[in-house]
Amino acid sequence: MNIIESLQWRYATKKFDNQKILSQDKIDLISEAFNLTATSYGLQPLQLLIIKDKKIQKELTEHSWNQQQVADASHLLVICIENKIDAKYITKYFESVKSIRNTPSEILKPFEEQLITSFTQKSKEEISIWATKQAYLAMGNLLTVCAIEKIDACPMEGFIPEKYDEILNLKDLGLTSVLVLPIGYRAEDDMFSELKKVRRGVQNMVVNISS
Amino acid sequence: MNIIESLQWRYATKKFDNQKILSQDKIDLISEAFNLTATSYGLQPLQLLIIKDKKIQKELTEHSWNQQQVADASHLLVICIENKIDAKYITKYFESVKSIRNTPSEILKPFEEQLITSFTQKSKEEISIWATKQAYLAMGNLLTVCAIEKIDACPMEGFIPEKYDEILNLKDLGLTSVLVLPIGYRAEDDMFSELKKVRRGVQNMVVNISS
Repeated sequence: MNIIESLQWRYATKKFDNQKILSQDKIDLISEAFNLTATSYGLQPLQLLIIKDKKIQKELTEHSWNQQQVADASHLLVICIENKIDAKYITKYFESVKSIRNTPSEILKPFEEQLITSFTQKSKEEISIWATKQAYLAMGNLLTVCAIEKIDACPMEGFIPEKYDEILNLKDLGLTSVLVLPIGYRAEDDMFSELKKVRRGVQNMVVNISS
Repeated sequence: MNIIESLQWRYATKKFDNQKILSQDKIDLISEAFNLTATSYGLQPLQLLIIKDKKIQKELTEHSWNQQQVADASHLLVICIENKIDAKYITKYFESVKSIRNTPSEILKPFEEQLITSFTQKSKEEISIWATKQAYLAMGNLLTVCAIEKIDACPMEGFIPEKYDEILNLKDLGLTSVLVLPIGYRAEDDMFSELKKVRRGVQNMVVNISS
């Protein structure tokens, strides 16, 4: 199956088979793919929760417009943003560039200082918006990776972040939930899996400008 | 190459080989992958410009912090958001659901009305933020698709959208530019292609919660 066929195969799964569990290999692959997602300046202002706990999943379903996929999925992914992207966080990033790449400090220093200046001038709200965009980028990556790996998924914006943060103690982890992605395997009787894809089509979505 | 190896292979290309041009097959594939991107409510509030015009690319480079990738890349992708997501746009979407899936109007109507109410209550700013998130999701998809297809790319937030909008007459198309992605093939002497990837690592990026 090529990449286009994989993207056509995927759909927002409405009903998961609650007996089918993803292997640890698949979870490890999702974890590594998340870690490899490109992010703005390489700062990775994100973390991924991977929940496999029916009690918690059931509790979170109530705060997800009762979408049963949250309870029934093999695993529930919650993409979170870091609450604190400050000078300390940025310095830590540059320390890791130095140690991984052996880049001399004098080369990195100007870029580090520029980034610290830029971020300390931003409001908490602005940093949160910036980080949230990176969460969507990570979601885009994960959806495609899932499609390739034949993992079913249902991307969700419809949940109450405050409730998720409370139930999962995210404040203590310095995180805020921004996107939810139940993953697993579609139920055989999910009628949505048979529906034709609705898309505007390349002719309406792409403009070619060529000399 | 499996998907993890592909994601490790990709990097933010700093220097493109300006003699190597992507085939039309690759451009068609990128176009279709963009069209297949998942979006909020399936509304696809996006369009993709695919520019292959050295004069325009050169002009846009000036408004992209002089990043030469904009000029040198085989093609320059610009992800844009639709300026007008209103009742008419939403109705058109539901018309296409009806015609593609033969879903009866009485099933779709409540959802259509709910969505129209929701969007007509949102400010222009709120709709723009919502659409921009979908642009990042599309970028996440495209970056992964490029990696699989061995297409080099450099995701960019660093450009002046107002200048892009002006030069590309985007207002006339009802669009606003939000993300830029030069694509093509890395130059043999791009030293960044040899650098080790800097990532926080799965142990710092993923939290497992399991019963």
